[in-house]
Amino acid sequence: MASILKDYSRLCVHTMTTRPWGIEECIRNYADAGIHGITIWRNVLENRNLKAIKTQLRDYGMQVVSLCRGGFFPSTSPVKRQSAIDDNLLAIEQASAMGAPLIVLVCGADKDQSLERSRDQIMQGIIRILPHAEAAGIRLAIEPLHPMYAGDRSAVNTIRQANDMAEKINSPWVGVAVDVYHLWWDPDLTTEINRCASQRHLFAFHVCDWKVPTSDFLHDRGLMGEGCINVPEIRSWVEEAGFSGYNEVEIFSDKYWSEDQNEYLGKIKSAYLTKT
Amino acid sequence: MASILKDYSRLCVHTMTTRPWGIEECIRNYADAGIHGITIWRNVLENRNLKAIKTQLRDYGMQVVSLCRGGFFPSTSPVKRQSAIDDNLLAIEQASAMGAPLIVLVCGADKDQSLERSRDQIMQGIIRILPHAEAAGIRLAIEPLHPMYAGDRSAVNTIRQANDMAEKINSPWVGVAVDVYHLWWDPDLTTEINRCASQRHLFAFHVCDWKVPTSDFLHDRGLMGEGCINVPEIRSWVEEAGFSGYNEVEIFSDKYWSEDQNEYLGKIKSAYLTKT
Repeated sequence: MASILKDYSRLCVHTMTTRPWGIEECIRNYADAGIHGITIWRNVLENRNLKAIKTQLRDYGMQVVSLCRGGFFPSTSPVKRQSAIDDNLLAIEQASAMGAPLIVLVCGADKDQSLERSRDQIMQGIIRILPHAEAAGIRLAIEPLHPMYAGDRSAVNTIRQANDMAEKINSPWVGVAVDVYHLWWDPDLTTEINRCASQRHLFAFHVCDWKVPTSDFLHDRGLMGEGCINVPEIRSWVEEAGFSGYNEVEIFSDKYWSEDQNEYLGKIKSAYLTKT
Repeated sequence: MASILKDYSRLCVHTMTTRPWGIEECIRNYADAGIHGITIWRNVLENRNLKAIKTQLRDYGMQVVSLCRGGFFPSTSPVKRQSAIDDNLLAIEQASAMGAPLIVLVCGADKDQSLERSRDQIMQGIIRILPHAEAAGIRLAIEPLHPMYAGDRSAVNTIRQANDMAEKINSPWVGVAVDVYHLWWDPDLTTEINRCASQRHLFAFHVCDWKVPTSDFLHDRGLMGEGCINVPEIRSWVEEAGFSGYNEVEIFSDKYWSEDQNEYLGKIKSAYLTKT
């Protein structure tokens, strides 16, 4: 059984979940709603003074859970691979400036080469940026993505592959982000969550739901309880494995983005207590 | 290395691939194009005299490779589960009438129950219809479907799960259909293809491609060579494992269905020789 969620102390919302809001609105409105965990997507940092945002985060008592996202290492082009490294180093600087202890890696894939080759490049990319992350005191989480993204977004598509990679890299600074949307269907999920946690690699836990039917590959995720994912059961698995971090609500949804975002935040809070 | 495909002797086309055509047109046009393998989807049999179709198939020298599809066993409703059994028994009759040696099972899933429960019901369903299939001399192929269909179309989402199920049922009449669209991303694919073939469970091989980007969950499959699937490599794996049956082209595509189907058939033939 999952623990009962009685309050919002472990609730974190991704800025992308309330995409219409800029970072300032996210901070103010999350805090006003009693939500103090925030994962910052890098798009909201564009053209912003990072020091001012850091100050606002502190003033509103916000805890930055992670920065999304680094990664996208694979490419048939060496120039693009180097540019990905540069971008990940920038992400480390941004995470440092925001006080984010973790960067989530959406690993990437290139349709013009094999998945195996893309995975090699992902591992090499992580190894390249690792000393910089470690020097900045920032952890890196490999996020396995649903197999429907294997063509363009990630060649790491199961938690087992992410565990394999983290164990090969074998650093306390590299672990795994478990997102129910990507992994709920996997018959090995319980086993691999336990393996992940036993290696101290379970760095993050993301929730939303899989709508039936789903109409869009990217922007039709559901609120917890709205779809077919056994969210509370998966949360019980990560908790029983020892995870006690934030439950991060990461929902990409054209439908919800078109609604009033404060009302939507209320729905998230309600689904968090009753369906997560 | 995959064998070189020099002719169309092992090419089979699914009637759903050329969806605008009725069964009579499929038979005539495939045969005219030098294609003699056909997999019949049950929709084209509605309101038809099966004997007349059987005669036409014989007259045109067509080989029926399989009937699509049985399955859809799971449901929270016992009435619906029974109705699925009845429908599968009808499929066996239809396969028998068409001279189809194989029925492909799209296993089904019910979003209102766990994947484990759906899988139990799938196995019970197959066991229920198995004596009828065996009596009719018709084999049943479990087709693992891409994890993006776990919510509504199949709780069997990896070839390993299909292999496990076929081995548990342990009948020469129950095996597995390997479709590159559903399985290409799986890091265990080579191993599990070998396992499948070693148990004499590799009953069918379906090809198409995964477009990047893909715009629709159901009807945006690509022609071989058009996407990111390593089709010739996967074909080499099934062949090296001992498979020598048809390469079945199963493409659901609103784009291609809107084109002239005879021209499209020409594209299929070309992609078959050069990109499969």
